[in-house]
Amino acid sequence: MALIGILGGMGPLATVDFFERVIELTSAAGASCDQQHLPLLLANLPHIPDRSTAILAEGEDPLPALLDGIDMLNRTGVELIAIPCNSAHYWYDAMCKRSRAPILHIAEACVAAIPHGTRRAAVLATGGTLASGLYQRILERSDIEPIVPSGATQEHIDACIQAVKAGDLDASAVQLEAALAAFAARGCRAAVMGCTEIPLAARRLAAPSLQLIDSTLELARATVSYGLARGWNIRR
Amino acid sequence: MALIGILGGMGPLATVDFFERVIELTSAAGASCDQQHLPLLLANLPHIPDRSTAILAEGEDPLPALLDGIDMLNRTGVELIAIPCNSAHYWYDAMCKRSRAPILHIAEACVAAIPHGTRRAAVLATGGTLASGLYQRILERSDIEPIVPSGATQEHIDACIQAVKAGDLDASAVQLEAALAAFAARGCRAAVMGCTEIPLAARRLAAPSLQLIDSTLELARATVSYGLARGWNIRR
Repeated sequence: MALIGILGGMGPLATVDFFERVIELTSAAGASCDQQHLPLLLANLPHIPDRSTAILAEGEDPLPALLDGIDMLNRTGVELIAIPCNSAHYWYDAMCKRSRAPILHIAEACVAAIPHGTRRAAVLATGGTLASGLYQRILERSDIEPIVPSGATQEHIDACIQAVKAGDLDASAVQLEAALAAFAARGCRAAVMGCTEIPLAARRLAAPSLQLIDSTLELARATVSYGLARGWNIRR
Repeated sequence: MALIGILGGMGPLATVDFFERVIELTSAAGASCDQQHLPLLLANLPHIPDRSTAILAEGEDPLPALLDGIDMLNRTGVELIAIPCNSAHYWYDAMCKRSRAPILHIAEACVAAIPHGTRRAAVLATGGTLASGLYQRILERSDIEPIVPSGATQEHIDACIQAVKAGDLDASAVQLEAALAAFAARGCRAAVMGCTEIPLAARRLAAPSLQLIDSTLELARATVSYGLARGWNIRR
């Protein structure tokens, strides 16, 4: 039985969201009973040191804990790994090197979902992911101009993310709305939600002022496609 | 680092619901960042043969697959196991015998949450759990008279459960409402939702006609209490 590994807990509520998207997408693809779903092994490891502060050279290195999680999943024999945390992908190459199972790339999946014809896209991410240039590089490779937030706008984005991590979704939506308004005022029409906390805030907005590309949803789509294409939902 | 094992996938959406309750309860207990949450290892194993039909002696025995899941969690060193599926508790003794880690009992947790002074409670469960008498025995031990559904009412309950497993929550709520109306007509005021699919349907009802005790939520409460009491959310 092929197992899909999920390295989660970064943060926990974003991991719930990712897991729910995987189940919903599998149902939408035709699963009508338990036995038609994909077997998953989800390691929710919230103690992994904060990725964003580490990238900004202010915090403990999370790589040893990330590799412990990769090892745990590989020991249990998973055949694919998804990591619903964008900032953790700063250490993507090191994790791939360690893992026997292939690892999907959340930012590649997210940028691939931007509608054709989009020329500019705002980057909504942690301070660490933003500073790393992860999304900017992938967007430029796709001929999309990355629009990065001003310092004041990034403060709203950081506050949005922290509010989701604290379980306060109402507060997170207020902060996200302020960030989106600032991007809209700069003529942006689309934004990548390059942090898995942000889609939880976005779902509280009745009518977001920008088209939002959801990295959690796109990683879930890539995960379900990979598993269903290989018949991993069919018991042998 | 102490890990809590979750043997899930029975069904997948009910497992998402359980996971979300665990995170929300941990936030409500004061966790305000990732690192204050509980480490979990969630095995979502939807291929385990249907528990209800097996109890009714019509289907494949799920015990070998349940024990494989218990073994997988124990091999990874979990120190507690929660199983968000009531029907699987038909094999509770065999799983406890096999597991090094203690296993919480969902029906014990659920019945313990019924308000004092409740004299009668309807049993909402799969046909298998109902036939096994699991809830009836625990309710009687607590001096609460179990009210079991008529055949026609059980058809609504079964349809509710199947609709959740197929991802159709609107249809599930219609079926649950019909079952609750039948119990209310018999003078019932309270019901145990002794199947983890049912709370997902119940959440769609604006004003359920009975007080509903949620086995998923109560198992989540027991899990979070156990972990927080032992400081498993604190990294050492």
